[in-house]
Amino acid sequence: MDIAVIGGTGEEGFGLTLRLGKAGRHVIIGSRSEEKGAGAAAKAREILGGDASIDGTSNEKAAEAADVVFVTVPYAGQADIYRSIKDQVAPGKIVCDCTSPLATAVGGRAWHVIRPWHGSAAEQAKSILQKGVRMVAAFHTISGEALQDLDHVLESDVLVCGMDAEARATVGELIQDIPDLRWVDCGDLSSARISETMTALLVSVNRAYKIHDAGFRVTGRASWGKPPKTSA
Amino acid sequence: MDIAVIGGTGEEGFGLTLRLGKAGRHVIIGSRSEEKGAGAAAKAREILGGDASIDGTSNEKAAEAADVVFVTVPYAGQADIYRSIKDQVAPGKIVCDCTSPLATAVGGRAWHVIRPWHGSAAEQAKSILQKGVRMVAAFHTISGEALQDLDHVLESDVLVCGMDAEARATVGELIQDIPDLRWVDCGDLSSARISETMTALLVSVNRAYKIHDAGFRVTGRASWGKPPKTSA
Repeated sequence: MDIAVIGGTGEEGFGLTLRLGKAGRHVIIGSRSEEKGAGAAAKAREILGGDASIDGTSNEKAAEAADVVFVTVPYAGQADIYRSIKDQVAPGKIVCDCTSPLATAVGGRAWHVIRPWHGSAAEQAKSILQKGVRMVAAFHTISGEALQDLDHVLESDVLVCGMDAEARATVGELIQDIPDLRWVDCGDLSSARISETMTALLVSVNRAYKIHDAGFRVTGRASWGKPPKTSA
Repeated sequence: MDIAVIGGTGEEGFGLTLRLGKAGRHVIIGSRSEEKGAGAAAKAREILGGDASIDGTSNEKAAEAADVVFVTVPYAGQADIYRSIKDQVAPGKIVCDCTSPLATAVGGRAWHVIRPWHGSAAEQAKSILQKGVRMVAAFHTISGEALQDLDHVLESDVLVCGMDAEARATVGELIQDIPDLRWVDCGDLSSARISETMTALLVSVNRAYKIHDAGFRVTGRASWGKPPKTSA
């Protein structure tokens, strides 16, 4: 399974690339510029060493080559990025949006959010992509800084919302390959209207306690991952 | 310090009463009917035994007698309840709203929310009460069922938003008196726009995994409670 990380030169995208690469996955970093994408891939291979399988190219080529496409870009540029890769993401592919609609996108505060017209950033992305693309939303509660620091034990869980249970589980399997990281099935894509905003609450907590990587661990069950009996 | 729990005959309110009573606090249960309030208090004293200090009366009288007023009512009736206690809640008192604007209030689903005009249910409550009342919002991630079961170890943290740091810390001190329960300062009252909706996400998780008390534990720090240096 080939994975693309669109916006893979940014903090969160690069961190996700490192973690997935370390877990043995083939990751293609996408960037607005093919050179920057290739450069980030070289840097990732250098950090991971050994036989890490990381390539880098343009967003378009990365999206075309991959089976699962992660999109880790700031909300301000999110719609443009999706329009730019629309033709390369064929129906049936799984796209995992990691965007939080922080108010910084319009000059506001990182602990405030704005409300996308479609309800969530992920639903906005879905409205741009071709019909039949299987949209998932995740990673809003994971600090990009912590993802990049491979020695940092990831304590926060990944909340996964998505259009169908199988797509959520496919993304979930990639997540649980990353040591310490757990995923929790949070149901329909529209629930991203909630999970995306939780990033801003974590910013409030970080500010209050002067820390950098507050997160949320889901309680109520010993283990998470694929729910006992999944219904699409 | 006298504490009122408005709507204290409901699952969450009664559970909160039991936990606070067990921690040695004097709690006044408020109900629409004075008799029902008194009846619930008798039941609580019976459960707690010993010298538990629980009284019960009308919502109005409970609100008047208390220094800190918790309001645990469904969103459908929340505005009416606040109007009914408005005259009894003098400026300077602390009110902790525990309402989540679940779509069930208008016949919808418990895993969906509706958007109150003021941004959050807590801000709506603030708009109804007298100027100078110190509004706090908390307990949206704690299951009422779990609160009522005194043998149930509470794993979820209480996310506390509020108008000023001192009011948040006052509510926080009551929370940390309850064994196992931790509180996290989540900043301004407007952040309740996020924390209130997290109840609906927990309903999604409960549905997916067929459980009853999913919650959130905040990660990134060994302990929470009052932030190192609080700014109002």
